[in-house]
Amino acid sequence: MAEKGEQTRERILDEALRLASRDGLEGLSIGGLAAALSLSKSGLFAHFGSKEALQVAVLDHASARLGERSAAVRDAAAGPDRIRALLEVSMDWMDDPARPGGCPITGACFEFDDQEGPVREALVQLQRAGQARTAAAFGAFADPGWDPHQLAFEYRAITLAYHHATRVLRAAQARAWARSALEALIARARQPPPLPSPGAPCPACS
Amino acid sequence: MAEKGEQTRERILDEALRLASRDGLEGLSIGGLAAALSLSKSGLFAHFGSKEALQVAVLDHASARLGERSAAVRDAAAGPDRIRALLEVSMDWMDDPARPGGCPITGACFEFDDQEGPVREALVQLQRAGQARTAAAFGAFADPGWDPHQLAFEYRAITLAYHHATRVLRAAQARAWARSALEALIARARQPPPLPSPGAPCPACS
Repeated sequence: MAEKGEQTRERILDEALRLASRDGLEGLSIGGLAAALSLSKSGLFAHFGSKEALQVAVLDHASARLGERSAAVRDAAAGPDRIRALLEVSMDWMDDPARPGGCPITGACFEFDDQEGPVREALVQLQRAGQARTAAAFGAFADPGWDPHQLAFEYRAITLAYHHATRVLRAAQARAWARSALEALIARARQPPPLPSPGAPCPACS
Repeated sequence: MAEKGEQTRERILDEALRLASRDGLEGLSIGGLAAALSLSKSGLFAHFGSKEALQVAVLDHASARLGERSAAVRDAAAGPDRIRALLEVSMDWMDDPARPGGCPITGACFEFDDQEGPVREALVQLQRAGQARTAAAFGAFADPGWDPHQLAFEYRAITLAYHHATRVLRAAQARAWARSALEALIARARQPPPLPSPGAPCPACS
């Protein structure tokens, strides 16, 4: 019985993920989800308790689903190949036809950036954890002079630009651009970081 | 009288921009805008005709306001300093307290990526024009071996990651990270592009 309950919850959350991908996490409602699943609204309400709790559950579920795909990457030897594999997993995740509206976590970053509350808190926790994981992956092979958070910032930049290039511009070159950008970042990470060039604002003091 | 009409329209669109920044372009409604401005809903409806037409007008208005700020940048000599100034203008635009919800164009990229129609068309046109302008700005000083669209992709990556770092992570280092990433991109753009490193997927054939 516990297993069946777990399966039902997974099925509900997969459907919620699909709807959140299309309509945004904000567009998700217990009523809409119940209708999509032909379940009773009161039953779903009893399950999640509130729209906010449902939104947090969907974020956690998206993170768990992405985590399942990333497991193979985490088992790979630490080094540039792990970062390369991470990018491929991310791009495949963003392009997954099961979620035709793209990555609901990335979408939520733009919906909840200025909405204080438990959904934003859950989102920020996920994003900080992602930043820390990427920083650790770079830290395993980068020159020790680097702040790994700088490299993690630039890695996230590539994934966000891929999302934009493939979903907004619908550019056929999106993957090639992202991969080239990552190769450049990996090559730089292996060298000591440069001093700020003359005329550029100093990152440390501005 | 024509001037007064123009001023009224500007005032309406500035308020719409502020609301779209907070609630998203999708959250904008003629009724909500009328209430915020203490104008009649029928008057605003006569002005814009439909929610979609209002959304397109707001996108164009955002682009025009950003364009006003970029004018000084475009007058600067072609070269790395123009790209540096562009990034500063972008970051100031994203942080403008008049639009506490961030850049409505960037937000719209995540709302309308999968919604076909005139709003998405207007958005894609703006984004393609931006991509072309950035590519031209890099083309003015980059090594001729580069595809300037690769560099424009990486420039957009930095602006999107800045938006994320400052608005989601609220990281104090966001500007420093973005500036360092841009300096690295400028330095690379001046050198011939590298061949794909062994073991990496070839961008041209994958």
